Amino acid sequence: MATIVAPHDFSAVEDAESLNKACKGWGTNEKAIISILGHRTAAQRQQIRLAYQELYQEDLVKRLESELSGDFEKAVYRWILDPADRDAVLANAAIRKLVNPDYHVVLEIACIRSPEELLAVRRAYQARYKHSLEEDVAAHTTGDIRQAFRIICMVTMFVVVLSQLLVALVTAFRYTGDEINARLAKSEAGILHDAIKDKAFNHEEVIRIVSTRSKAQVMATFNCYRDDQGTSITKKLLGEGGDHGTEFTKALRTAIRCLNDSKKYFEKVLRNAMKGMGTDEDALTRVIVTRAEKDLKDIKEYYYKRNSVPLEQAVAKDTSGDYKDFLLTLLGKED
Amino acid sequence: MATIVAPHDFSAVEDAESLNKACKGWGTNEKAIISILGHRTAAQRQQIRLAYQELYQEDLVKRLESELSGDFEKAVYRWILDPADRDAVLANAAIRKLVNPDYHVVLEIACIRSPEELLAVRRAYQARYKHSLEEDVAAHTTGDIRQAFRIICMVTMFVVVLSQLLVALVTAFRYTGDEINARLAKSEAGILHDAIKDKAFNHEEVIRIVSTRSKAQVMATFNCYRDDQGTSITKKLLGEGGDHGTEFTKALRTAIRCLNDSKKYFEKVLRNAMKGMGTDEDALTRVIVTRAEKDLKDIKEYYYKRNSVPLEQAVAKDTSGDYKDFLLTLLGKED
Repeated sequence: MATIVAPHDFSAVEDAESLNKACKGWGTNEKAIISILGHRTAAQRQQIRLAYQELYQEDLVKRLESELSGDFEKAVYRWILDPADRDAVLANAAIRKLVNPDYHVVLEIACIRSPEELLAVRRAYQARYKHSLEEDVAAHTTGDIRQAFRIICMVTMFVVVLSQLLVALVTAFRYTGDEINARLAKSEAGILHDAIKDKAFNHEEVIRIVSTRSKAQVMATFNCYRDDQGTSITKKLLGEGGDHGTEFTKALRTAIRCLNDSKKYFEKVLRNAMKGMGTDEDALTRVIVTRAEKDLKDIKEYYYKRNSVPLEQAVAKDTSGDYKDFLLTLLGKED
Repeated sequence: MATIVAPHDFSAVEDAESLNKACKGWGTNEKAIISILGHRTAAQRQQIRLAYQELYQEDLVKRLESELSGDFEKAVYRWILDPADRDAVLANAAIRKLVNPDYHVVLEIACIRSPEELLAVRRAYQARYKHSLEEDVAAHTTGDIRQAFRIICMVTMFVVVLSQLLVALVTAFRYTGDEINARLAKSEAGILHDAIKDKAFNHEEVIRIVSTRSKAQVMATFNCYRDDQGTSITKKLLGEGGDHGTEFTKALRTAIRCLNDSKKYFEKVLRNAMKGMGTDEDALTRVIVTRAEKDLKDIKEYYYKRNSVPLEQAVAKDTSGDYKDFLLTLLGKED
């Protein structure tokens, strides 16, 4: 269930006018921006953008970028974009981090979005960057990076394997039916078990299973694994991989967790983002913005169960100012 | 340019009635079937199928299957299907050949269809087989087959690499813009050259370049290769690969030829299909049926230039009966 509260009746033109007024003159009226955009669905925001363009011959997104700043600006910018376009932006930003590329964001998008949604992201990515998503993922994770790794620590092979996993997941267009082949689940659970046990990491089979089977089928396979081995595959992977395999096994664990239970996965991302000193604003913004219209209500429940603190309270404690107000609005706080 | 001759005005209901009459009673009127279906576009055939279903509560495709036989039946069946659905059928048949799987058909579909067409094939494949195309390609080229290869000749690694190439091409959704990055083409031509020269086959880079770059970009890269090395990459690959790499280098050559000049590629498929004794009817039917509405006129020109014999004449010499009449009709012969 979604958390945002949006009116059924609204006027895109009135909203555009109010936003224009909020941006005019000295000082910006951030409260007004939050109270409008924080209560509009993706389709409504799209209409507001169009109305704004028509009325003022100016892109609302660009205008807001120039008016706002910091984490608040970033959150509003992410929020106002069409979901597929937003994912394209998130993926691109993650890939472009040359030092420590944030491939978990790529995995999240590839494994949690529906096949049709992922396809829309790939289209949006091409429209925006004039490259395919997989092209950039592959180029940024094999080319220079691999060269760097080769020089630094000779773990080439595992970086290549990581890249293969990422590309396979990003290009997946899974079958969405509910049919499950139980015999196949059992046999592929066995293949996964052997692959992990051998440590030789028969990675091509692991990648094949995780990236091509339908979500229903991989979940059946993971359940078989748990039944047969008495422990979940992600727990098992935690202790494996050796010194060199770490990046690959980490990515594989993330992919499996995303495929298996995305709400639980997001709860943990939120928990880690606010853990200890400092806050990972990028992660916090990402989860709230991308899930507010989807299942943030459920994620809030998971969060409360796991941390005994309401998510709103944790967010309020770790953030401040307009950024805080905006996130809390997306979390469903009534004005 | 297409070869088929189809009327602008037609009545799906009248065609359905004529086809029903052609199938009725003792003996089938194959001539009538050819003269109708051989002169209808994909959209028109679709309408005829719908009209037939409505009039007779029967699937025209099933009816024709029961009335016709042999190569003629196969050709009509391929022809009557919607192009994306037809490709799904072709790919599935190719994958399922356990002994000597015909991965060239898969490569052809992956590399010659436009990104949107390939996507439509993947959708059609899922609707028909309740699996994703890449899932079946991967399972049929890594699982059992790999096991068999491992036992027979220890060339596991190259079979795995072959499978990676196939899956990467099948899942590609390339950027379709015309923009070319000349510097990138030059650098990636160098990477390809090193990969081939080393014989170690830095296959992951080769697969990345061939499967993720836009067609315009890979063609620029192949041109750079030719400029720098004085020979085409496909010629170079012909002499390489060693004993074990053959299957991979063969597949890579096919992919590159399909990406580079599909008409020239099809000319050769036709030439080989009719070379010497015997005819490869599957290949002959495939090329004519899949290209008749696209570029078979150009392929005919290529064929004539290369063989000094008109394609129609070669086909007439190698085939007979209704099968021959049907192919010649698709090739543009006026009744």
